[in-house]
Amino acid sequence: MSRLDKKSLLPRLCIFSAVSFILYKLYEQRDKDGRHIKQVSSDSLRTEEANEFEIKEDEDKENEKIWKSDTNMLAFQSDHFRGIRVIASRIPKNKKEWEQKLSYSLREWTLKKFRGVWIKLPVALVSYLEYGLKQGMAIHHATKEYVMLYKWLPHDEKDMVPEYCHSYLGVGALIINEKRQCVVIQEKWDFGRANYWKTPGGAVDRCESISHAAVREAKVKWKMCLLFVVCFLEETGIECEFISILGFRQMMPYRFGNTADIWFLCLLRPVDNTPLEFKKDEHEIAQIKWMDLNEFMNLECTKSIFQHYNFEKAVAKEVDWLLKHWNDCFDQQPKNLDNSLKIVKNTNIGFRCLPLEDRSTEHKQKRYFFQPNTQL
Amino acid sequence: MSRLDKKSLLPRLCIFSAVSFILYKLYEQRDKDGRHIKQVSSDSLRTEEANEFEIKEDEDKENEKIWKSDTNMLAFQSDHFRGIRVIASRIPKNKKEWEQKLSYSLREWTLKKFRGVWIKLPVALVSYLEYGLKQGMAIHHATKEYVMLYKWLPHDEKDMVPEYCHSYLGVGALIINEKRQCVVIQEKWDFGRANYWKTPGGAVDRCESISHAAVREAKVKWKMCLLFVVCFLEETGIECEFISILGFRQMMPYRFGNTADIWFLCLLRPVDNTPLEFKKDEHEIAQIKWMDLNEFMNLECTKSIFQHYNFEKAVAKEVDWLLKHWNDCFDQQPKNLDNSLKIVKNTNIGFRCLPLEDRSTEHKQKRYFFQPNTQL
Repeated sequence: MSRLDKKSLLPRLCIFSAVSFILYKLYEQRDKDGRHIKQVSSDSLRTEEANEFEIKEDEDKENEKIWKSDTNMLAFQSDHFRGIRVIASRIPKNKKEWEQKLSYSLREWTLKKFRGVWIKLPVALVSYLEYGLKQGMAIHHATKEYVMLYKWLPHDEKDMVPEYCHSYLGVGALIINEKRQCVVIQEKWDFGRANYWKTPGGAVDRCESISHAAVREAKVKWKMCLLFVVCFLEETGIECEFISILGFRQMMPYRFGNTADIWFLCLLRPVDNTPLEFKKDEHEIAQIKWMDLNEFMNLECTKSIFQHYNFEKAVAKEVDWLLKHWNDCFDQQPKNLDNSLKIVKNTNIGFRCLPLEDRSTEHKQKRYFFQPNTQL
Repeated sequence: MSRLDKKSLLPRLCIFSAVSFILYKLYEQRDKDGRHIKQVSSDSLRTEEANEFEIKEDEDKENEKIWKSDTNMLAFQSDHFRGIRVIASRIPKNKKEWEQKLSYSLREWTLKKFRGVWIKLPVALVSYLEYGLKQGMAIHHATKEYVMLYKWLPHDEKDMVPEYCHSYLGVGALIINEKRQCVVIQEKWDFGRANYWKTPGGAVDRCESISHAAVREAKVKWKMCLLFVVCFLEETGIECEFISILGFRQMMPYRFGNTADIWFLCLLRPVDNTPLEFKKDEHEIAQIKWMDLNEFMNLECTKSIFQHYNFEKAVAKEVDWLLKHWNDCFDQQPKNLDNSLKIVKNTNIGFRCLPLEDRSTEHKQKRYFFQPNTQL
């Protein structure tokens, strides 16, 4: 670094900052594009196949007559299972009108033997909540954008509506090269503890596959570090490929004392096999380097993290096997995730990921199946 | 059934109903017992190890001085990471007082460089929400019981608080006996479709392990059916033992269009090896029987469900192996889940489940590690 003058360093930093910002925005946007808001009836929520029967907001013309027939009611759509979904965009802006229509509608729906009612209340209308609860509705879940109210109408049947999600997903990325080294980082956030070396990782994003999350987290962590460390070595972004899930642990209670967390330990390797030598940076923000796998596994901090996952017994054995059979397992020119998924068919460690065909193009669902690589 | 008179049938139905009700209530209570409500600061939410630093409601005497020092403020506790948690039980019952104290407290906390604020608002105080949002707070998540408000205080740092959970967990139970038969059921709820044979299964409960969920769902489905079918055959509850996870699939978008679902296909066997012959019941509510595994896998409905999971290629191969090596794999007298977990060390199919030691007895966490059974 001392050999670089400010004039050559600044433009590089600017370019990296801009690229990182754009990449971040792309990640952020990804989930918002081209998705229909879908709702399922309380009834159809009962089975895992429920989403087959989802109806799209404002698209179900078949039921249009129902909610136009009575102007005293809240605008709604019904589904084949006698569930009601109030159309969020047509909720009255006047609070008095909301109260009148809600109580009238609930009476009518009950008389007409509808079963479950869903109302997605935008946060701007949060003052409407109180009356909803007075009318016997309950809060199902909420986000920054909305509060979901629901009511189970049949008096003679137990409310079968399942709770909202209560599991977090996370990934750890064990990135290994041919020299039997792994990528280790020290996080910026040390929470007052002594900082320690760990594998990159983080949370699985909303509607993201586990394998993609591992690849993304590996890349993002590297990119983050690029700003502070690797740009000085004139390295650019590094792509990893997903090999397999080495194992996963489920832990509870987790955040808020009433959730659980599943953490998937993923095996990755850099697409570019050229070994990278990281300059050991003393900056307090972040550190990154290659570390001999044996050394990493023998660190006290690693042991204290991984002993719970039987890391040494399970993972080391798998990684040993992988390193011995490297040439058999991998094509020398894998370029993307799909390729690598095909390539690792030859390995027998961990769980492979197979992207599956959409059940229906209409629903645009993504499905991934993880299966053991055991060769029986 | 026609041979049973009403007098002998009624008492049996009553006993089974009572037993089922008690069992259900026991399940329902399970998660409520002996749990402390825990909160984590917004800051400590950043890493998967965050829960190491949780503080217990009303138990952190160390910080008592802070919230007693200023009676104009909301009662709160702080943590080592400069996070604030307002004590729910001490939120003013008077709305005006709430508003005054909230705005004053937020100002003070910002001045004192605190970072994140959490307020768990009971639904009874839902009318307080509006003012909270006006003060720049946001809804993080909500349940039937409470709405969680939060605010990220530092103006010069990006809000790093992660979203609430967005993944559902489910299990399917493939229960296999020595005769190469599996348990199949038809659900009570057919949603207007033609009913079809499927394996028992359902949602993983809050803070429940995947393996226990599979065993529980297998048992509950059978118990449910006992009311309608098996009681006529004078069968009692049947215990299954968990063998392994054969694979799992991740699917998105799922419920509400913005969540994902992970479905774990679990291999189970009845603890009692005596083959049960179910009477094929014509009742519209539920059916249960043993079906030859080949027959089940060749049903059109099974194919349409399992083709997405490569069932035939992956699972059938594993099950074949299991049946061939049955005697090598299992002790003949396994009695409970822990035993079976030890016993299946000899199998090499699917993912084993290893219950792990708690990291700290203080947190009473449960951890399970799933690892491939591959014998390298």
